[in-house]
Amino acid sequence: MIIAIKRGSPAEEVIEFIAFLEKQGVKVHRSDGEEQTVLGLVGDTTKIDADALRARHLVDKVIRVQEPYKMANRSFHPDDTRIDVSTDGGGVKSIGGGFLGIIAGPCSVESREQIIAVAQSVKKSGAGFLRGGAFKPRTSPYSFQGLGCEGVNLLMEAKKETGLPVVSELMTINQLEIFDGVDVIQIGARNMQNFSLLRELGHCCKPILLKRGYANTITELLMAAEYIMAGGNERIILCERGIRSFDDYTRNTLDLAAVPILKRHSHLPVIVDPSHSTGLSWMVPSMSKAAIAAGADGIIVEVHNNPEKALCDGEQSITPDVFSDLMDTIRKYAVIEGKTL
Amino acid sequence: MIIAIKRGSPAEEVIEFIAFLEKQGVKVHRSDGEEQTVLGLVGDTTKIDADALRARHLVDKVIRVQEPYKMANRSFHPDDTRIDVSTDGGGVKSIGGGFLGIIAGPCSVESREQIIAVAQSVKKSGAGFLRGGAFKPRTSPYSFQGLGCEGVNLLMEAKKETGLPVVSELMTINQLEIFDGVDVIQIGARNMQNFSLLRELGHCCKPILLKRGYANTITELLMAAEYIMAGGNERIILCERGIRSFDDYTRNTLDLAAVPILKRHSHLPVIVDPSHSTGLSWMVPSMSKAAIAAGADGIIVEVHNNPEKALCDGEQSITPDVFSDLMDTIRKYAVIEGKTL
Amino acid sequence: MIIAIKRGSPAEEVIEFIAFLEKQGVKVHRSDGEEQTVLGLVGDTTKIDADALRARHLVDKVIRVQEPYKMANRSFHPDDTRIDVSTDGGGVKSIGGGFLGIIAGPCSVESREQIIAVAQSVKKSGAGFLRGGAFKPRTSPYSFQGLGCEGVNLLMEAKKETGLPVVSELMTINQLEIFDGVDVIQIGARNMQNFSLLRELGHCCKPILLKRGYANTITELLMAAEYIMAGGNERIILCERGIRSFDDYTRNTLDLAAVPILKRHSHLPVIVDPSHSTGLSWMVPSMSKAAIAAGADGIIVEVHNNPEKALCDGEQSITPDVFSDLMDTIRKYAVIEGKTL
Amino acid sequence: MIIAIKRGSPAEEVIEFIAFLEKQGVKVHRSDGEEQTVLGLVGDTTKIDADALRARHLVDKVIRVQEPYKMANRSFHPDDTRIDVSTDGGGVKSIGGGFLGIIAGPCSVESREQIIAVAQSVKKSGAGFLRGGAFKPRTSPYSFQGLGCEGVNLLMEAKKETGLPVVSELMTINQLEIFDGVDVIQIGARNMQNFSLLRELGHCCKPILLKRGYANTITELLMAAEYIMAGGNERIILCERGIRSFDDYTRNTLDLAAVPILKRHSHLPVIVDPSHSTGLSWMVPSMSKAAIAAGADGIIVEVHNNPEKALCDGEQSITPDVFSDLMDTIRKYAVIEGKTL
Repeated sequence: MIIAIKRGSPAEEVIEFIAFLEKQGVKVHRSDGEEQTVLGLVGDTTKIDADALRARHLVDKVIRVQEPYKMANRSFHPDDTRIDVSTDGGGVKSIGGGFLGIIAGPCSVESREQIIAVAQSVKKSGAGFLRGGAFKPRTSPYSFQGLGCEGVNLLMEAKKETGLPVVSELMTINQLEIFDGVDVIQIGARNMQNFSLLRELGHCCKPILLKRGYANTITELLMAAEYIMAGGNERIILCERGIRSFDDYTRNTLDLAAVPILKRHSHLPVIVDPSHSTGLSWMVPSMSKAAIAAGADGIIVEVHNNPEKALCDGEQSITPDVFSDLMDTIRKYAVIEGKTL
Repeated sequence: MIIAIKRGSPAEEVIEFIAFLEKQGVKVHRSDGEEQTVLGLVGDTTKIDADALRARHLVDKVIRVQEPYKMANRSFHPDDTRIDVSTDGGGVKSIGGGFLGIIAGPCSVESREQIIAVAQSVKKSGAGFLRGGAFKPRTSPYSFQGLGCEGVNLLMEAKKETGLPVVSELMTINQLEIFDGVDVIQIGARNMQNFSLLRELGHCCKPILLKRGYANTITELLMAAEYIMAGGNERIILCERGIRSFDDYTRNTLDLAAVPILKRHSHLPVIVDPSHSTGLSWMVPSMSKAAIAAGADGIIVEVHNNPEKALCDGEQSITPDVFSDLMDTIRKYAVIEGKTL
Repeated sequence: MIIAIKRGSPAEEVIEFIAFLEKQGVKVHRSDGEEQTVLGLVGDTTKIDADALRARHLVDKVIRVQEPYKMANRSFHPDDTRIDVSTDGGGVKSIGGGFLGIIAGPCSVESREQIIAVAQSVKKSGAGFLRGGAFKPRTSPYSFQGLGCEGVNLLMEAKKETGLPVVSELMTINQLEIFDGVDVIQIGARNMQNFSLLRELGHCCKPILLKRGYANTITELLMAAEYIMAGGNERIILCERGIRSFDDYTRNTLDLAAVPILKRHSHLPVIVDPSHSTGLSWMVPSMSKAAIAAGADGIIVEVHNNPEKALCDGEQSITPDVFSDLMDTIRKYAVIEGKTL
Repeated sequence: MIIAIKRGSPAEEVIEFIAFLEKQGVKVHRSDGEEQTVLGLVGDTTKIDADALRARHLVDKVIRVQEPYKMANRSFHPDDTRIDVSTDGGGVKSIGGGFLGIIAGPCSVESREQIIAVAQSVKKSGAGFLRGGAFKPRTSPYSFQGLGCEGVNLLMEAKKETGLPVVSELMTINQLEIFDGVDVIQIGARNMQNFSLLRELGHCCKPILLKRGYANTITELLMAAEYIMAGGNERIILCERGIRSFDDYTRNTLDLAAVPILKRHSHLPVIVDPSHSTGLSWMVPSMSKAAIAAGADGIIVEVHNNPEKALCDGEQSITPDVFSDLMDTIRKYAVIEGKTL
């Protein structure tokens, strides 16, 4: 961390300020230039609050050189993290570290027939994981909110039927018990900065699929991962799912540049959600391919056997046939990118 | 709601679609133009999911004419809602309906001395409510997270000492018990779409100060209020606190146009947070005045007796002296705007 | 400017780099900390290209301490600039330095009757300047593009009739001749970074009303002013007119915080356009008042005698009656703010 | 176009309004529902100004069903447009219609040696076009503004040397003469809505590479193309180069979803600029691949033989070696996507 001191600051205040900084456990290297005094902080600056420093009247600028996250930081963990999920049959499905995780399924679990049909079809096409929402965060209190516990039970049936590990969204920590059989816990974009929830997830022993909030920076996403990791749970899959911009053609603006950035700064696997980001099924194949080309470790895609009748988000769900074709292309891309499906 | 049907849609599918719509409790008025068939939905369309309709292949466009919120809607409740809060001495402090609510205090409660000193000073300058954070949502797990229960206890002491009703932020529903003596519960921007929490707040009997998420639209804010109101709690104060834009000079972009918009579409009181939106104390007075001029029913301002030593967000806190001067000007603006402090 | 050097950079490369920097006319103060070498640049860094430095592989971070604009910078010109415009009758109308400039008139000049009627009415209500578009930048090539030269002639008639100085938008430098009688040249948001045009305007001797581009930062606006000022024309009025954000209720998001920011960093007068920013006439009065409360040196407002029949942007034009009421309130605000109308 | 009339509008005003609409050359289909009257406009609504209609007090909502652009619209021109550029040797280089156009070269032309060296190297790696800036739009008037005419002359030498057609940015129409030998005229993001310039380009007979403004919607980009096409020049290449969002890690947010959207709504070729959008050379290869995977008809990439010494934007330029590797991968992607290089 580098701190530029305002010109004309009284010498004794600068000395006092340096003492204050050193009390926080860092060493301070002072450099008095002709026009400006600059302080260089040496040591672990993760716990130093840059905003609090900026409030000091003798501080001109504060520049973080070190990133504010540690456990999620690739500098301290150079190798890719691979998330392994055991399947019922004794196998393993992996995401990251050269493995592409393909997660597919309906937005909401709607019925036994629906979820089993979709699960069987996406398995056949090559998906590694089944997704399905039981508890749905909906903008309107009057919209369908998911089947709840019954939805989780139906997911368990589909898992039993197909052997696919299951990914589902958790909305409050109280649901953790119900999620006993769920293999990967998804945290939605709107909860990415629900810090109380993140802290609780640190004590949970399941992998967490953490979606980027639609107005959160890369650093904030990594800090949210850090909240969970600081509690002891290091199995986190990051997910880019679109950010809000002025452009209103798609529901959100898919920020594919986030993929190489996250992979450069963190060792955690990064996947992309082409369905929620665009909100339009016809764009899902091209954005899925672009995600893999950008270096993503997988995708999470909505597939519905009858998008027209879907109880939520049908507009963005692709059919099993489209998914099957997409998987054929993804296999070719995986070869070029040196990834294993 | 108006639905434009795609050209060339088979007649029988259109008929089937109309039947489907009518099953959802609305009447459908069909109009066959030369180039396009248009359906007009009559009745309560609040519960109809526009996105689900857009997924139908015969649907071209869906346009909401009616707003998706009901209880928060001024159309169904033309008069301003006024939130009254009883004070210990048997008095009442009000926000909305012609009353300006001035909420002031430190970002975080830090010590008995600090909170009582600030409370006395803002009371003297004319503030109606004391704010103070006991549980703090912080981006980094390594930053100061607030004094917690002890912070709430200190707020209670400051309330006893000054008689000012207290506003404090709640992060999970489990904290409700601890908040027994808190007069107004603040829900932070990051929890604005924590739907599980909103639903629980519907059963609570305290006024809720609901902050707009920094990437949420006006409609989403009103839908969040609707979540709470649908549960039975209709005492909600809306708060504009800045949105994210490309501009990085201030922490967020204060969207003052939201004030007249919210007041046009809703009967709920609307206040403005000039401290968190800008993040810079020197802008607080000008943005506070602009908020009142724009028609706000109040402001929530950070005041700290020693901003330089504040444990969080000192950069955006004004001193008691600056606050006192600001109140003098606000009193003049209130006269012009016909508001009572 | 402060440059942090990457750890492990070869000593001789750092020396070579310092020599390169000094060749650009600055002195370099080098400070070798335990973990990082930091260079402090002393002297005029305005001409140093921070981006070019960032491309060097031994550079970690570059931080501008000095702002990149000079002539527009308040540091080098502490007093407010006041723009005086002579009127035909020998009087003077001023904007800035304590004077509120109220510029009002229709979006487009449409006919002799219209422009003269509006001019007379806004003059009566207290406007100091008449605005009217003769050349209109329209998103569609098929929309009405303004009356062109005829429009300018009609503006001249209205000026003669009322004595009000005239503000009109110029789209290419070739129109300068036609604008001989126009008193203040407006440069629209879409041309804010038309650098060829800005450079030409530096040689022009009329005041320039420079609108902020809807996706431009505060610094970019001041750099655009700097382009004109570097050519010799220092009479510039800055105008905030809304930026693009995710929110789609209003046409743009009016960034009123830009007003105190611009006034802190620049000596140039700052006005606000409440009409184009919101796009909605009913919001114009509240946003105009908020602009004055935020410290603006004036407003530019669309007034049309028959908004319903306006050839462009009628939706955002207020009627002469609404304008007259607004002026009454602005006069009261001006007293509080210590401004002269 | 569908117009919803406000409830309670006087019958005679509705009739008068319909007459007004029909005078503009469309037929109006009126439908009186129980709660609302809806008008359907039949015919060419391209020239109808939706905003002007919204200003009418009896209008509730206006919904465009037809897109406002015509010549750029795929509906009226279902086949892909291919832009062919003749090379000196009698050959042809194409972009669109199944052909990938790879445009590479330095941000700025700096010297004879530089431009020829880069041209030879990118040609060897398989680029089809040479890019190089002679006139540079720079945010600061004090930055290097390009070599101007001399730069164009050097580009001509590089063209002669290598046979590569040349792409260069034009800033004002006066430069057209100097651009005689330039094969494709680039219009930069900041000039995308310089309507005077666009109109002039309609009379020019060279292909135009039109970059999307960093705050412009898809529709606005297509309307800008329409401006040029309406003048007679239909050879336009659209270019996505990043938009402004809250995220500040990269210079802009590359909106790759724009590629399939533009190709769905327009027949014009679409390319991507991974260099200016990200501003970081290490991201160029992954974003280039993602662009091709998303369906782009080509890329425009900055390649510099010595990025560290580049006079502008070195930070985003890749070296000839990195470019050569990237071309190898692109060739593989092209096979999967069925495109010809």
